Amino acid sequence: MTTIRAKIAQRALAPGERLPSIRKLSATLEVSPSTVVEAYDRLAAEGVIRPRPGSGFYVTGSSTPFALIAAEPNLDRAIDPLWVSRQSLDIGAGAFKPGCGWLSAEWMPLDAIRRAMRSLSRCDSAVLADYGPTHGYPPLRQLLARQFAAEGLAVGADQILLTSSGTQAIDLLCRFLLQPGDTVLLDDPCYFNFQALLRAHRVKVVGVPMSATGPDLDRFVEAVKTRKPRMYITNSAIHNPTGATLSPQVAHQILVAAAEHGVTIVEDDIYADFEPDPSARLALLDGLSRVIRIGSFSKTLSAGLRCGYIVARRDWIEGLLDLLVATSFGGPNPVAAALVATVLQDGSYRKHLGDVRRRLARRRTDVAGQLAGLGIVPWLMPRGGFNLWCKLPGHRDGGAIAMAALRDNVVLAPGNVFSVSQSSPDFMRVNVTQMTDPHCFKVLARVLAEPN
Amino acid sequence: MTTIRAKIAQRALAPGERLPSIRKLSATLEVSPSTVVEAYDRLAAEGVIRPRPGSGFYVTGSSTPFALIAAEPNLDRAIDPLWVSRQSLDIGAGAFKPGCGWLSAEWMPLDAIRRAMRSLSRCDSAVLADYGPTHGYPPLRQLLARQFAAEGLAVGADQILLTSSGTQAIDLLCRFLLQPGDTVLLDDPCYFNFQALLRAHRVKVVGVPMSATGPDLDRFVEAVKTRKPRMYITNSAIHNPTGATLSPQVAHQILVAAAEHGVTIVEDDIYADFEPDPSARLALLDGLSRVIRIGSFSKTLSAGLRCGYIVARRDWIEGLLDLLVATSFGGPNPVAAALVATVLQDGSYRKHLGDVRRRLARRRTDVAGQLAGLGIVPWLMPRGGFNLWCKLPGHRDGGAIAMAALRDNVVLAPGNVFSVSQSSPDFMRVNVTQMTDPHCFKVLARVLAEPN
Repeated sequence: MTTIRAKIAQRALAPGERLPSIRKLSATLEVSPSTVVEAYDRLAAEGVIRPRPGSGFYVTGSSTPFALIAAEPNLDRAIDPLWVSRQSLDIGAGAFKPGCGWLSAEWMPLDAIRRAMRSLSRCDSAVLADYGPTHGYPPLRQLLARQFAAEGLAVGADQILLTSSGTQAIDLLCRFLLQPGDTVLLDDPCYFNFQALLRAHRVKVVGVPMSATGPDLDRFVEAVKTRKPRMYITNSAIHNPTGATLSPQVAHQILVAAAEHGVTIVEDDIYADFEPDPSARLALLDGLSRVIRIGSFSKTLSAGLRCGYIVARRDWIEGLLDLLVATSFGGPNPVAAALVATVLQDGSYRKHLGDVRRRLARRRTDVAGQLAGLGIVPWLMPRGGFNLWCKLPGHRDGGAIAMAALRDNVVLAPGNVFSVSQSSPDFMRVNVTQMTDPHCFKVLARVLAEPN
Repeated sequence: MTTIRAKIAQRALAPGERLPSIRKLSATLEVSPSTVVEAYDRLAAEGVIRPRPGSGFYVTGSSTPFALIAAEPNLDRAIDPLWVSRQSLDIGAGAFKPGCGWLSAEWMPLDAIRRAMRSLSRCDSAVLADYGPTHGYPPLRQLLARQFAAEGLAVGADQILLTSSGTQAIDLLCRFLLQPGDTVLLDDPCYFNFQALLRAHRVKVVGVPMSATGPDLDRFVEAVKTRKPRMYITNSAIHNPTGATLSPQVAHQILVAAAEHGVTIVEDDIYADFEPDPSARLALLDGLSRVIRIGSFSKTLSAGLRCGYIVARRDWIEGLLDLLVATSFGGPNPVAAALVATVLQDGSYRKHLGDVRRRLARRRTDVAGQLAGLGIVPWLMPRGGFNLWCKLPGHRDGGAIAMAALRDNVVLAPGNVFSVSQSSPDFMRVNVTQMTDPHCFKVLARVLAEPN
């Protein structure tokens, strides 16, 4: 019953579709035919399926919603690609969240944000109460265009599209470039929400193992050749979760392989501002021919303002705008975009970024030292950012440890939620800014001391 | 070439798919085989298609994006369901927009918004710079729950999900309830963006003609029986564009038919606050069993703040939250939601709404009178709101008139952008608040005087 129910929920069995015959299913599941008969009868009694005499059982046409993840909403929810986000966002103020993927409010330029709000309360009424243009608030796009030009990527403000988050940016690109059944390449491990998002688009996902300098090149080229992906999504700088940095040589070879096989690349650059100096970028090398750059301000300015962007070749912008209007009637609200633009131009913002980078560097070293005392070792020390991708001692299972820690109000990010191939069971991503309270170390030590 | 290119852009021809044979296509298009040979050769030279010796031509695997609407970004863009939105949002400050679907900033409670911003500049730093809970800013959800309870719809705040717009709310519900190839019922005419949005979901759309009291009931029941739709999307109060009001009898019969055939109903209630007193509601009668209510604050509070909501049965919320996190990492930003909540609680807001309703009633009468002078007649006089659905004199084509008016900086909303069956060519939706400048009437008079 569980198997059939899950298949229907995930739409592997569509309404009106015929269920496998009793003989076939009993063979597949290695149960007796009478067990299958009983399960089918019960599901029919519930109205989930319907018998047609002489023809078998069919899924009824009732409104069975699409389940991205077939799971229940509670502490015991299975650890899946959405587990860490949902727990981190909803656990409540008293909890500790070394598993969460952002900096808390005290790391943000709060004074500049408050100043920007006061100044905006006096601004043009159109910004406060009218729709903005479809591309998004023009001053912010102009400011970004100047910033990209300074980095060596010459783009017009008309090639920049504001969105309400980096996630919405990637979602829009998936709508634009993919159709159900397509294949998408991801790094393995990668940001877990890439997997959740791609499930919503009903596409196939193929993982390429990560190295310290980007994806394993041989495996990447092989996957591109044999699996014919339409898209590759990656973070080049301060890769999430590993902290790897793409080398110029790997960047170049990725672009050569992508060009040969018609792969479009989405470069998610939301960690750019944490780098001490810029490393290799696919968008920069490629000049936006087949690479699309996306970003957001959630990591360094405010997680709450919800403002991201897409930078893409000019001939793709119109189609993206149509989709943006059709699916959300635009990107971020003009108030959020104006707040972001005002903070970026505030004299204090550059200094704030420098301070954050210095504080994070110290914190990474400190936390790595403390974790070493528990036998937990970073895979590499990243050039910037707040994440350490750590190996657990003694092949401990990160999922079991995360479940145990949650009972003590500590949200951890177990390795396999990041892994396409489920090959990182004994890893854990640690946010060093949220790993400060002794409670976190105490809980971790206690859980590690328990038998596996 | 245009035909093939459009088919590829709209994914009617997928990458890797074989093109029709030269003989077959020349017969279909009624052109000579040599014309097809030339077109195929040119497309092959461009790399759009690729010959395989002895086997014909194939669509290449290159990154051909999905085109929601195959159109070019300029004044001459074909009039399609996105035409009015894109023109209204992007035309620039000097233009006149009787075709646009919202109130401009001077109709909004600007003083209350400015007060709310000043008060928020002093608020808790978490609201300014941290993610909020996945459901959305709790005080706004609690406030909405109390408001719905007062209307007779008892819901918990946990049944309310904040989104960044009414459109995002419907988009999320489509993701939750539909899969490609499903059928959706719409009113004919209906809000044009429903059609654009449903194209993005690759579903089939069936229109049911509107009457002054809701959809034509016989046609509705027939469509539900024969077309087996999974969803019906409608506005019950002050229907867009017609201004119709759902009667209690039609509401009841719709629910009976929907229950019999397993149809889920999305009731888009964004015009509720314009009603002098509440009319029949599907969500209220049904008690959220198969009806989902959505709304937003874009029409009466601020079009720019981007905050909407979903009210749905409790067992659907978790699945919706998973999709919301996966595709946009949440709904509106906490700042926008807090601004909305603060304005809703401001003592002046209720009075503001009363004033707006009175001003709109006068304006509807005035503009209807002026339009009558041009032979333009409302289909009915709505109970509230800012739209008049008007019949043009002498079977004039609304699309041609809108194109002509745009050259004089006037954006109109021609009837057929609202019509699923393209059966409203001689209609036009007029926003009475944007139809005040004599320039609009002058342009309209001149364009109507031109030969059809």
